[in-house]
Amino acid sequence: MTEMINWLTKRAELSPNKQAVVLKDGTAYTFSDLKNHAKSVASYLAHLGIKQGDHVALLSKNSYDFLVTIHALNYLEVTSFLINTRLTAQEINYQLEDGEVRYLIYDEDLSDLAEPIAQQAVKTVSMQQCPKSNQTNNIMTDDLNLKSTSHILYTSGTTGNPKGVQLTYQNHWWSATASALNLGLHDHDRWLLSLPMFHVGGLSIVYRSVIYGIPIHLHDTFDVEAVHEDLMKNGVTIVSVVSVMLEQLLDRLGEEHYPEQFRCMLLGGGPAPKGLLQQAKDKHVPVFQTYGMTETASQFCTLDDENALSKIGSAGKPLFPNQLKIIQNEQEQPANEVGEIVVKGPTVTQGYYNRDEATRETIVNGWLKTGDLGYFDEDGFLYVVDRRKDLIISGGENVYPAEIEGVLKMHPKVKDAGVVGQEDDRWGQVPAAFIVFEEAVDFAKLEQFCLEHLAKYKCPKKWTSIDELPRNASKKLLRHQLQKQLKE
Amino acid sequence: MTEMINWLTKRAELSPNKQAVVLKDGTAYTFSDLKNHAKSVASYLAHLGIKQGDHVALLSKNSYDFLVTIHALNYLEVTSFLINTRLTAQEINYQLEDGEVRYLIYDEDLSDLAEPIAQQAVKTVSMQQCPKSNQTNNIMTDDLNLKSTSHILYTSGTTGNPKGVQLTYQNHWWSATASALNLGLHDHDRWLLSLPMFHVGGLSIVYRSVIYGIPIHLHDTFDVEAVHEDLMKNGVTIVSVVSVMLEQLLDRLGEEHYPEQFRCMLLGGGPAPKGLLQQAKDKHVPVFQTYGMTETASQFCTLDDENALSKIGSAGKPLFPNQLKIIQNEQEQPANEVGEIVVKGPTVTQGYYNRDEATRETIVNGWLKTGDLGYFDEDGFLYVVDRRKDLIISGGENVYPAEIEGVLKMHPKVKDAGVVGQEDDRWGQVPAAFIVFEEAVDFAKLEQFCLEHLAKYKCPKKWTSIDELPRNASKKLLRHQLQKQLKE
Repeated sequence: MTEMINWLTKRAELSPNKQAVVLKDGTAYTFSDLKNHAKSVASYLAHLGIKQGDHVALLSKNSYDFLVTIHALNYLEVTSFLINTRLTAQEINYQLEDGEVRYLIYDEDLSDLAEPIAQQAVKTVSMQQCPKSNQTNNIMTDDLNLKSTSHILYTSGTTGNPKGVQLTYQNHWWSATASALNLGLHDHDRWLLSLPMFHVGGLSIVYRSVIYGIPIHLHDTFDVEAVHEDLMKNGVTIVSVVSVMLEQLLDRLGEEHYPEQFRCMLLGGGPAPKGLLQQAKDKHVPVFQTYGMTETASQFCTLDDENALSKIGSAGKPLFPNQLKIIQNEQEQPANEVGEIVVKGPTVTQGYYNRDEATRETIVNGWLKTGDLGYFDEDGFLYVVDRRKDLIISGGENVYPAEIEGVLKMHPKVKDAGVVGQEDDRWGQVPAAFIVFEEAVDFAKLEQFCLEHLAKYKCPKKWTSIDELPRNASKKLLRHQLQKQLKE
Repeated sequence: MTEMINWLTKRAELSPNKQAVVLKDGTAYTFSDLKNHAKSVASYLAHLGIKQGDHVALLSKNSYDFLVTIHALNYLEVTSFLINTRLTAQEINYQLEDGEVRYLIYDEDLSDLAEPIAQQAVKTVSMQQCPKSNQTNNIMTDDLNLKSTSHILYTSGTTGNPKGVQLTYQNHWWSATASALNLGLHDHDRWLLSLPMFHVGGLSIVYRSVIYGIPIHLHDTFDVEAVHEDLMKNGVTIVSVVSVMLEQLLDRLGEEHYPEQFRCMLLGGGPAPKGLLQQAKDKHVPVFQTYGMTETASQFCTLDDENALSKIGSAGKPLFPNQLKIIQNEQEQPANEVGEIVVKGPTVTQGYYNRDEATRETIVNGWLKTGDLGYFDEDGFLYVVDRRKDLIISGGENVYPAEIEGVLKMHPKVKDAGVVGQEDDRWGQVPAAFIVFEEAVDFAKLEQFCLEHLAKYKCPKKWTSIDELPRNASKKLLRHQLQKQLKE
């Protein structure tokens, strides 16, 4: 069973007049509108030469146009690359080359970023120039093959080279149904989306909306006042957040309470401080901790309603179709023993684009090694102790030290560099750099150098000069020693 | 993606202490109990020699033991044949031979029926002698292959020979998730099951319970008083019924109202009289009409909540993963034009057991010809005009005229026979027979003869002697002429 009708077409048949999207200003579009607009944009893009199997990148902040374009590209049966708008032109170019992308569709608000990217090999199209007509145009197929790769999303690893995670429609389908089996599905559900749609956490809501037939309350960005107001006044029942958002929302909530229909604050993007979870519990905010990643098409484990309060700090159990093991020295660990989290299931990626070796190392017999550490308690609830040992999570964004170190070492005056995460009240963590100089330079200059090559959130916020980096016999950087030094 | 963990094992991991089953007397079992009991029975059956790939028949009325045994057989990775308890020994033997069944597990209450069936080729095991221990025994696998055939259920066709419909785990999985996408899924859902579990309508609830993590309120049979009481007092939210049950429940309801949490009366088993639906509407009973069959693992189309009242009489739209076309003269029909209902989707059977020709005739390019007649209205809602032209639906049971005609023609004094459905206030329809005699016989004797060969509900309730049956040039029986005569 690999054939289905395009999900948006099907949803528009089932619920043509139901709201699909509500914008912050109250503008709403139905599933029928969304389908017509997506088909109209698809026709235009087809006319420009984009065709089945092409690799097309999308560079946009959250907007209705972005949503329409994602669906338009699905109608064209292309694989779309959703680009983090906070990356530098250089980082974006790396992805376009690595992914053999032929077209870049961009939001005109980001022209400054998009224009330098235009190369001979990549044609650029402004998203705003694509017409959204209500004339249904049926030149393209309504078929959908579950095994097709809908998106490639880049994520870094310990090697420092971002790799393209391939996600199929099947991955999204199972993610959506698995989540519904955990959270339930109510007729009046409304899901607030303020996470970027270019990350898997936001993207998953795009598909849940059409599969469930529920509206997205679409925010261009996370603005605590706007999100608070939407939760309080407009019937939102579910919102996806990361820790830093939860904290701001709880502050804003003060002594107030969310309306009764608000039933789920889905918390992802890394472990949350226990104090924050306790604070949410005290305010009767229904927080559901989750564990997931790009490679699992978002949510893989989630704490359920029944145990949300008694198992505070846990990411719950693997969703119905999913399996999870804790492995140490190739042995499955008993309860309360920490080991690497290894996952299997229908939402797990087939692998990294054009990276057969990395894929073979990461996915063995269908089991994906996450590199994250965790344990099960005696009742089978997962506690994530630490994300990949070296991963820094800053405001919900993944920051890979190796990538920053690679940039720092490019600087002619830098002999060696080591980066670790430093605790931060606002962002959870921020990168901190240790530099071995060839010849002393002002840190402000190094910071400027980083900003030229890296997204701002990846640039180190703390700098330390050091004579030599702690390394083991095989010259592997001992980050935990840097961590220790940082605390001292 | 074809591997999963056995669904009951997984559910017992996720919700060990949640109620899985509540019996009429209030006895309740958790998912953990159900899993342990099923594994215990599976161990015992394995010990008797039942092993992966075997064909095993189950003959039982609804009971906790029956439910446990269904799950036990899944642990053993056998294909189980669920036998209609209203069939005669002869009819059952036909299925066992046709299905190459090696074991018959039976409820001791049905010993009279089961014992004559015992043949050399079929070993019988009483369900009651299987021990339900709480000792978990892990000798059997927890793996589940979605492509494996879990059940073969027999259904007749126009040829008169019952055929075994093969259903895979995949069919059940998609049916369960498709239904949840339509009806929603609430934390406190409880599904009342009084339809026989040997029919697909009852069986589908067995799987939904474990996939959703919600209790079954299990009734051994449809007793209007017991069902009414359960709906009124015990928090049931969903019940599956056929028309004759709905009618009795509405009578019993009188001027009362169901509690607010009762949210869905799922009505299947053939078209319902409009007057009955209107009566339900007047009493604010949330009836959801469905269309489905054994070949589609139950529900294929269902009217949604939004349109339940405005589209009265419609079976709704094909569920999210499903497709449906109306075909006449090999052409897809426009709105309001009647034609044959043809269906495609992941809940559709792969085909009939050992009946390649029938399978090839029925399923073409993944599209299954149902033989039923219907049309779409201009909004895309399906109206089923008539089940397979010749099908008689009596109290929710399918009765195939050709099968009855075949039995009648076996009688030495009968030259020819034709059977059609007659309207009946209580059962919807009952079979009516037209007989061309070789030599006159008392109808009471023919009735006796039928009872020896056919389940009681299949025996004609009205008898007419006729000189010659109306047939067309190719000798095909013209049933509509018999219908006409019946009305006169």
